[in-house]
Amino acid sequence: MNYPNGKKSSSQSLRKKEKPDFSNRGMTLEEDIAFTNEYYRIDNIANIHKKPTPVQIVDVHYPKRSAAVIKEAYFKQASTTDFNGIYRGSYIDFEAKETKNKTSFPLSNIHQHQIDHMKDCHHHGGICFLIIKFSLRDETYLLPAEDLFHYWEAQFSGGRKSISYLDIKSKGELLPFHYQARVDYIKVLDKLYF
Amino acid sequence: MNYPNGKKSSSQSLRKKEKPDFSNRGMTLEEDIAFTNEYYRIDNIANIHKKPTPVQIVDVHYPKRSAAVIKEAYFKQASTTDFNGIYRGSYIDFEAKETKNKTSFPLSNIHQHQIDHMKDCHHHGGICFLIIKFSLRDETYLLPAEDLFHYWEAQFSGGRKSISYLDIKSKGELLPFHYQARVDYIKVLDKLYF
Repeated sequence: MNYPNGKKSSSQSLRKKEKPDFSNRGMTLEEDIAFTNEYYRIDNIANIHKKPTPVQIVDVHYPKRSAAVIKEAYFKQASTTDFNGIYRGSYIDFEAKETKNKTSFPLSNIHQHQIDHMKDCHHHGGICFLIIKFSLRDETYLLPAEDLFHYWEAQFSGGRKSISYLDIKSKGELLPFHYQARVDYIKVLDKLYF
Repeated sequence: MNYPNGKKSSSQSLRKKEKPDFSNRGMTLEEDIAFTNEYYRIDNIANIHKKPTPVQIVDVHYPKRSAAVIKEAYFKQASTTDFNGIYRGSYIDFEAKETKNKTSFPLSNIHQHQIDHMKDCHHHGGICFLIIKFSLRDETYLLPAEDLFHYWEAQFSGGRKSISYLDIKSKGELLPFHYQARVDYIKVLDKLYF
């Protein structure tokens, strides 16, 4: 696989020897993206990370001769999306969601603050998008933020509270599955933005 | 204050009414940066966030009618730097450190994986740097990643294990203190990179 930076994949020989193991398709979307990001990073393609889950720490114990233990903490609401990083000099920012719904993606999976964050990053020149996996179809799409914003706003003026599968299929891009890049969104970004 | 995007600060009137309260100078560097980032975000200057502290969650209780409580968790080592985001279309990535040392900044404050991460982001075209506060001097500097890399590598070939205050003063840029942008690194990025 040749990536647009002209570099040959350093794990090419490795990949040729290994046979794709499709039994691993049962991983969650988040695991697949983590796997993909690690491959992008090691192969010098992009540097994208998932942000840690924000936690409000209340009580920590420091036992002798062992690691500090957090004894009381609470989940906090994130103020951003889950993933960000850099690809070919551009700032990349996205959220990833899975749905078991076959015919539509409910907008209740997204929060206003995530839309606000993506709008803000988009305004500053970043590339923002949503990755949506229809688990029961085993299909994953990239929906550019501009399209997401359109559907998001429409719900407040009489539009539907979800995006239909067919709309996502036509406005979005199907993400190819590759052995190392299980959710190969960089391929789609190349097509759309570079 | 006019920022280079040509926008007038929307909180300008607010700021004119308030008198700078230098008693707040006792905030930690991290608090000062959080305050600055919030101002940049609200005033549409940049979108930069601190990443949450990574935590390995082991046990969570779900009490009836109240929020989930994390009962056992451990601190994990971060694989990136603490701050990243976007400014004028560019990917921004940095780490911030305070020292009580008056004459030098010990390199033991930085970890190899943070250097590796910054090198990687720098390679992809991001703007990377270190913010160093000399607490006892109440002076904060921005040191570009290229200079940091130089001192980092030098320590493995007979160089010193710290960067002298004088070197930071000459290679780095003093960060101005403003009432809303307490660690006004965007001002310095404008000078160095735009």
